[in-house]
Amino acid sequence: MSALVPAESDVLVIGAGVIGLSIAWRAAQQGLSVVVADPLPGHGATHAAAGMLTPIAEAAYAEREIFALGRDSLRRYPGFIEELHQVTGLPTGFRQAGTLQVAYDSDDMAMLAETRVLQESFGVHLEQLTARECREAEPMLDPSVRGGLLATGDGAVDPRLLVVALQRAAERAGARLTRQSVIEVTCAGGRVTGARLADDSVIAASWIVLAAGWESAAIAGLPAGTVPPVRPVKGQIIRLRTSAAAERSGLPPGLLRRTVRGVVRGSSVYLVPRDSGELVVGATQEELGPDTTVTAGGIWELLRDARTLVPGVTELLLTDVVAGLRPGTPDNAPLLGPSSLPGLVLATGHFRAGVLLAPVTADTVSAYLRTGIPDPIWQAFGADRFTARGSGLREASGRREPQEAATCR
Amino acid sequence: MSALVPAESDVLVIGAGVIGLSIAWRAAQQGLSVVVADPLPGHGATHAAAGMLTPIAEAAYAEREIFALGRDSLRRYPGFIEELHQVTGLPTGFRQAGTLQVAYDSDDMAMLAETRVLQESFGVHLEQLTARECREAEPMLDPSVRGGLLATGDGAVDPRLLVVALQRAAERAGARLTRQSVIEVTCAGGRVTGARLADDSVIAASWIVLAAGWESAAIAGLPAGTVPPVRPVKGQIIRLRTSAAAERSGLPPGLLRRTVRGVVRGSSVYLVPRDSGELVVGATQEELGPDTTVTAGGIWELLRDARTLVPGVTELLLTDVVAGLRPGTPDNAPLLGPSSLPGLVLATGHFRAGVLLAPVTADTVSAYLRTGIPDPIWQAFGADRFTARGSGLREASGRREPQEAATCR
Repeated sequence: MSALVPAESDVLVIGAGVIGLSIAWRAAQQGLSVVVADPLPGHGATHAAAGMLTPIAEAAYAEREIFALGRDSLRRYPGFIEELHQVTGLPTGFRQAGTLQVAYDSDDMAMLAETRVLQESFGVHLEQLTARECREAEPMLDPSVRGGLLATGDGAVDPRLLVVALQRAAERAGARLTRQSVIEVTCAGGRVTGARLADDSVIAASWIVLAAGWESAAIAGLPAGTVPPVRPVKGQIIRLRTSAAAERSGLPPGLLRRTVRGVVRGSSVYLVPRDSGELVVGATQEELGPDTTVTAGGIWELLRDARTLVPGVTELLLTDVVAGLRPGTPDNAPLLGPSSLPGLVLATGHFRAGVLLAPVTADTVSAYLRTGIPDPIWQAFGADRFTARGSGLREASGRREPQEAATCR
Repeated sequence: MSALVPAESDVLVIGAGVIGLSIAWRAAQQGLSVVVADPLPGHGATHAAAGMLTPIAEAAYAEREIFALGRDSLRRYPGFIEELHQVTGLPTGFRQAGTLQVAYDSDDMAMLAETRVLQESFGVHLEQLTARECREAEPMLDPSVRGGLLATGDGAVDPRLLVVALQRAAERAGARLTRQSVIEVTCAGGRVTGARLADDSVIAASWIVLAAGWESAAIAGLPAGTVPPVRPVKGQIIRLRTSAAAERSGLPPGLLRRTVRGVVRGSSVYLVPRDSGELVVGATQEELGPDTTVTAGGIWELLRDARTLVPGVTELLLTDVVAGLRPGTPDNAPLLGPSSLPGLVLATGHFRAGVLLAPVTADTVSAYLRTGIPDPIWQAFGADRFTARGSGLREASGRREPQEAATCR
């Protein structure tokens, strides 16, 4: 009986999304014995994600620190993908074709100018494009587009392919995947000892990495003060596809050459093309609790805004509509590093940037598991930042208020 | 080997959509031995159909005759459904709550007035509603709706439920379903003898009823002049659903009490509510050959028009998007009755009205199979009407020109 003779491992990663699997891979590469627990690997927020690798897109939320973290992770991406491909031979849809941020009317132009000021204050140079230059860069853009900003270093990846490759790489490196929910974290002597799974079996582990996205808060056994203040932020997203006929006529796969982002009369939309011919259009941002329904209104707004910027999308095939739940935090920046419960490491709350932040999260968390030394880059993202501010957690998530120090039961 | 010892039956019905299964049921009830062949029963045009029972909606296409046929079929519906329910105990989603046709602007009001004149010339009385009366009848209508016409006798049925019940009823009455495509119709001595199926087996039959929708023209072995001039007319359609929360708040299932049809700035849309909470929004009408792709533009237009008439649809869950192929004919009226090949009976080309016309088609075709006497109601719908007009068939369908008399090979 596994419940009587618990399986032993160095690290139990809770959650097999892009974050959990990246950590499992890196940790296993370093010789740690790793188990990843998830009833449906890759089917949380990762499954809905578009896969944009655009650090500046997140900067509006948590400013300089999160931009720096995103830029650091973007720099790691080519090597991360190259190594993943060498190990697995599997595709990930990675490409680094840049992002074109466009403005549709004069209000949008003003917003674009503000973005540029912000970005330059971060030391990033962006090319400013005229209307004509925008259309030269992306011939499918609506003629009404007024101008744009081109970030040449940005990239994109296909998250659904990426998790398949990550799972393969993690398993090749020796990590073991168990397709079960973690019901409860267990601890003894003031430190985590492992976890109990849905089938009542127990996994003994020296470290637990909590990477279960918005569901990270739902796991039992976490002492007050260690429950991460994450909430689900719903995003509806559409997948379109260019037809074979369109591609024969010379249109680029997915209609565009690079990611296009824009604000259409105050409403944000992005379009991410892939070599496969897929064009991902996202995303709504809704605070409705754990609701993953796809609504007529959500899909209508995405199609409306996408066709305003790129009228040709009306000709594309509609292949998928889905809603996912991003893990939001009170300041929408991630929770990275040790918690107040020894042995419990947080890697959650990545909100809209989980795919972008996977390499930096995996590298730093796996190093910490080996050395016990927190990475300085985590400074702005510690779990204690909400505790220190007092009631922020309670207000933001409605969960129990954290205490100064965690105590095991 | 079934190819050597052919199965014998009185009637082979090609196609297990709402038309083919209705005929099979009625024919089997009369003591005929019936086989229905279809690789995917109920998955052609029937699967996409909304199930409106609104005779006047089709009148614009083929005028008085098709309206009379539709009204005749609508009168048969309550008995047809009652009998089906008695035999099978299965639900069909039938209800007779009427249709409200609404106008959104002054052009639409003018069109509504024309519709009223046409309908009254057919001897139909419709209630004319003011804007206020429209909103009293359907509180979820947009306040901009200018007025409407209420047809109290119209109904609706759920075609996906209906085919399940029809298949059960046909089988209970003794019909046999074979899940195979018919490859070729065979004949000898100037009359049909049966058909060859995809597995190369042969079904011997005295009568063949061609009820395969737009695919009726693709079956081999039909002599020139008997190939029905049907073409696929694509329709994209959306299924929405009210949430449990919405229904608890007192909204009717599917938001509306009855079918609402309207023209929004020249674009037609209809919304069909069901007791299950489903609201069907349709439909595009596209001449693209056998293309069943769902496009961003098609879905966007349906959502745009639906929310213009009934803004609350944006809150509904999007549960299904699908494209079907209606069997259109050169005049978009059905092809009913004997062809010039003895033993071959046509029951196809029902275009947008297959669900509405199922009872009258089934009753008259099954009577003909028993008596050999064509129903007078078929007069305007004979297969020979295109032959008589000369080149109409060739122009409309691009198929080979029919000859005066069919000869078997």
